[in-house]
Amino acid sequence: MAKKISRNTFLTENSPSISAFASITGEKEGSGPIGSCFDRVEKDSHFGQDSWEKAESELQKQTVELAIKKAGLKSADIDCIFSGDLINQCMGTTYGLRDLNIPFLGIYGACSTMAEGLLLATLLTDSGLGEHIAAATSSHFSTAERQFRFPLSYGGQRTPSAQWTCTASGAVILSPQGGAPYIKAVSIGNITDLGITDANNMGAAMAPAAASTIKNYLSDTGLTPDDFDVIVTGDLGTVGSQLLKELLLKDNIDISVQHRDCGAIIFDSEEQDTHAGGSGCGCSASVLCGYFLPKVQTGEIKEMIFAATGALMSPTASQQGESIPSISHLIHISYKI
Amino acid sequence: MAKKISRNTFLTENSPSISAFASITGEKEGSGPIGSCFDRVEKDSHFGQDSWEKAESELQKQTVELAIKKAGLKSADIDCIFSGDLINQCMGTTYGLRDLNIPFLGIYGACSTMAEGLLLATLLTDSGLGEHIAAATSSHFSTAERQFRFPLSYGGQRTPSAQWTCTASGAVILSPQGGAPYIKAVSIGNITDLGITDANNMGAAMAPAAASTIKNYLSDTGLTPDDFDVIVTGDLGTVGSQLLKELLLKDNIDISVQHRDCGAIIFDSEEQDTHAGGSGCGCSASVLCGYFLPKVQTGEIKEMIFAATGALMSPTASQQGESIPSISHLIHISYKI
Repeated sequence: MAKKISRNTFLTENSPSISAFASITGEKEGSGPIGSCFDRVEKDSHFGQDSWEKAESELQKQTVELAIKKAGLKSADIDCIFSGDLINQCMGTTYGLRDLNIPFLGIYGACSTMAEGLLLATLLTDSGLGEHIAAATSSHFSTAERQFRFPLSYGGQRTPSAQWTCTASGAVILSPQGGAPYIKAVSIGNITDLGITDANNMGAAMAPAAASTIKNYLSDTGLTPDDFDVIVTGDLGTVGSQLLKELLLKDNIDISVQHRDCGAIIFDSEEQDTHAGGSGCGCSASVLCGYFLPKVQTGEIKEMIFAATGALMSPTASQQGESIPSISHLIHISYKI
Repeated sequence: MAKKISRNTFLTENSPSISAFASITGEKEGSGPIGSCFDRVEKDSHFGQDSWEKAESELQKQTVELAIKKAGLKSADIDCIFSGDLINQCMGTTYGLRDLNIPFLGIYGACSTMAEGLLLATLLTDSGLGEHIAAATSSHFSTAERQFRFPLSYGGQRTPSAQWTCTASGAVILSPQGGAPYIKAVSIGNITDLGITDANNMGAAMAPAAASTIKNYLSDTGLTPDDFDVIVTGDLGTVGSQLLKELLLKDNIDISVQHRDCGAIIFDSEEQDTHAGGSGCGCSASVLCGYFLPKVQTGEIKEMIFAATGALMSPTASQQGESIPSISHLIHISYKI
């Protein structure tokens, strides 16, 4: 049973194992600097479907099925699944998972969804409430761009701080027993809003949430950045990453050596014209499952923080002049049990 | 620590107490047959705000604050809160709760949200992971109707099977110790889709999910409808309620004596022109917190099932000809510890 050591942070008692993980992306993500790490790169951005939303559903379904297969299990072996996505009413998730017949708990954390699902799956697994609990999420460039910004065919100019929504999905299976990676601790985020109103600068909106969650976690545990090989954020991109480091430096926390951002890693901004980097629920989910977890599995990375961030905005809120609330949940992942 | 007795169902070990609960509704709900049971009925449907979405945020915020106050606590005493709503990107929730500074876990279960939040809060509380865990949700007629159906000023004709989205919110606080009501068990739902495509007949879309979850729970526990004073569904309305009873009768389960539906209770359909009844996340949440939980607190109701249902559809999916997947999570609430 996990131990609550502060208002936000829980240390696990039995270090649940991420017993399987899978990632599938679109072709642009597969052509990026870390493209070879994903389990599968799909050339058909429609994933064989006749709408973008159905394409995202298919992407998430295939990724969850692949994680289950890699665990040597069947859908019927999964106790329950936590998932959500960015499309209105989480359509990518509900339509993607409806045929799998797995007890389903829908979550909404925008681009923090992978961390939120991992967090809840960790608390249930560590409390002995499941043998195989799954967490997943997805995003698709074509569903997100047209919902949050402009019609795809409009071809609007993108600002330098804009990010590129990844067509990608990641899924994990948590188990009480199994090999590395292990989850040592989780920390729930609080909603943070410093007044950013620019929907084309979500990195800046989300950086304060990541800074707050990372700072709280280090303070709660007495750990320092030097205790980690990497401190990974979700999709702050280049603009938000710089801001995160500056914010933490004000509290004398220097993560410049350890910090990596999934949104900054997944694309070559210059070559791929992605401006400030990748974004979307599937960005951090696929980079976690494709790039980082295999390195923890082999011991190349021994201790890591995964702090995905979510911009909890909606186009309606932006049109009403509202600022963008954000949240960041944190997972401490380790090579050692 | 809860005990998992089937793939879906968990019995609680320590019977967490619903130590406080609150409900606030709009004027139409307050003028209905059970209007006097709500903690507060607000005459201003804008809740002092300048948009419907901000009104819903304010409604949810005030309801959560009231539940916290009724528990004799402050925001800073709440370990974490599970909440979500129907507006795109759960705007009612994220903007409503951002100032409360409570560790936040966003959920999406459409109109099953209150049951999903209660379920997760129960599992964490029963595992010793919090002293005061909150669950909340809300809906607003004017945010939901214009998002899911037609512009408010269009004045479209409504079908006989259509339901009326409630302007309402409910919030609960769960604690390891406290008086009745107690939570004895919870059951996670699976996504169910029997092919209903009519967004104006959501009761019919959701009834199979409720039937499946109730049937599984009775089978998992060996209990029968006669073991309960009431078996409460969320917002099936009159059409969906009839279908639910017919579906369960096929399995020789007769709930006709015990069944109540929050959507069928909250309005007088004839007098208030609400057709098949109320709907929306706030419908079952406010009726649970305003009407049912006080009766369990006094022992007038000794054993009850609360099985809220959610239609996991989106306007985009409906426009693409998709059917409506649904889900129902179940909470067994008792007067006895």
